[in-house]
Amino acid sequence: MKLPATPAVQVTDPNFSLADIDPSTTAPFTTKAAAEKRLKKLRERLSELQENLYAEHRRSVLLVFQAMDTGGKDGAIEKLLTGVNPAGVQVSPFKAPSTKELNHDFLWRIHQQTPGKGHIGVFNRSHYEDVLITRVHGLIDEATWQRRYTDINNFERLLTNDHTRILKFFLHISKEEQAARLQARLDDPAKRWKFDPNDLKERKYWDDYQTAYEDALRHCSPPESPWFVVPADKKWARDLAIIEIVVAALEDMNPQPPAPSYDVAAQVVE
Amino acid sequence: MKLPATPAVQVTDPNFSLADIDPSTTAPFTTKAAAEKRLKKLRERLSELQENLYAEHRRSVLLVFQAMDTGGKDGAIEKLLTGVNPAGVQVSPFKAPSTKELNHDFLWRIHQQTPGKGHIGVFNRSHYEDVLITRVHGLIDEATWQRRYTDINNFERLLTNDHTRILKFFLHISKEEQAARLQARLDDPAKRWKFDPNDLKERKYWDDYQTAYEDALRHCSPPESPWFVVPADKKWARDLAIIEIVVAALEDMNPQPPAPSYDVAAQVVE
Repeated sequence: MKLPATPAVQVTDPNFSLADIDPSTTAPFTTKAAAEKRLKKLRERLSELQENLYAEHRRSVLLVFQAMDTGGKDGAIEKLLTGVNPAGVQVSPFKAPSTKELNHDFLWRIHQQTPGKGHIGVFNRSHYEDVLITRVHGLIDEATWQRRYTDINNFERLLTNDHTRILKFFLHISKEEQAARLQARLDDPAKRWKFDPNDLKERKYWDDYQTAYEDALRHCSPPESPWFVVPADKKWARDLAIIEIVVAALEDMNPQPPAPSYDVAAQVVE
Repeated sequence: MKLPATPAVQVTDPNFSLADIDPSTTAPFTTKAAAEKRLKKLRERLSELQENLYAEHRRSVLLVFQAMDTGGKDGAIEKLLTGVNPAGVQVSPFKAPSTKELNHDFLWRIHQQTPGKGHIGVFNRSHYEDVLITRVHGLIDEATWQRRYTDINNFERLLTNDHTRILKFFLHISKEEQAARLQARLDDPAKRWKFDPNDLKERKYWDDYQTAYEDALRHCSPPESPWFVVPADKKWARDLAIIEIVVAALEDMNPQPPAPSYDVAAQVVE
């Protein structure tokens, strides 16, 4: 697949560094106004492609979203999918696992939510949490997270072999941008429901999370299931980068409605 | 784990041959009467071990049953589990996949049925059907079944890493014994509901199935997730062999109820 020009970076180098990617860059995008125009057009195209994917009923798409708190997962998913037929899309948010979920392996609840043929599945958080938050808080040891990288790669290969195109997006914000967004949630009464005092505690682990993310992205980026680091301080650039990549992947898949299994000319509607 | 002496053979040799294993052998078991006495005792022990596994709530057991038609899966499962607390056991029969199941990868419906901590899961047919019937009937090519062996091994490793002890039983009957059992189902009005004319068609593929089984057992028998070939022409020997192995595995796991988290002596019930 030929990647469109966006600020996003596909992880291909196993030694890539998150710190090398500027979260505030918008290049090569030009202006917010131009971006919004382009985004609107791409959303129309995405809607057409999704309809063909659905009609074809042979392949699936899985989009994984991860980010630091306030990184913009909800907003990015909303921007991407608004206008797409919800019947062909399934958004699965993964919160803290339930007791029942904890009674099973970490991929048990994830596997249940994978998209069926013809569908686009969207993970808001994902199986990657099990090598991130658990690692940062010392709930698992290194042998476990290394083994989970293998489990994740095997699992994603199972899906890609089953004709699921996987695209994973890490929304990359700066620590300063997070501070501004948390403060905004406190200051604006309409946004206070989004604030959780626990976010301030998690913020203290910023560097540990960056390390855990970098490590996960390094280990789980095979060409058929890539991670994209999306500079996300500027929401408009983030949203355009994501939809550019999603549409490019779908164009590459080129889904086609099946040919009629009947003789069209012979059908007479009376 | 030290294996008890039974007619069953654990697959360890990647070149083992099914034809080398006599389906009618009962050795080293002696008489049916002695076997039934021993089976009764083992079932009591199994019940105790299951209770401890449940109380411990840390590990799981997964038992997989596969066989040719009339091989005795239902009977073997009934003999093994009768008397064990059903609250700690989950039997999952896998029939022909539904439309919804076919919309996902072949392990999707399987993964959902894996046992949670403290539970014994029993698969009556399993993910192995997807390298057996599909292969015999030419629905998949060799590249696909080879890839599925890898998927299966990866999947089972995920479960064993998550503290699930897996034991897989292939109930091995002779072609003559199948003929006798099919005829009995036709002759006995009380058994006719078990007969399906399609079984006669499947019987024509006997050799292809034996080859497919042998190949699957050869490729998917890592030490932590072994296959046992259970001579199954004699039901009493089959049933005793299975429970001997299951109880030995549970004894090896040695599940223990957790120690009280409170000071027992300080508790006063008034």
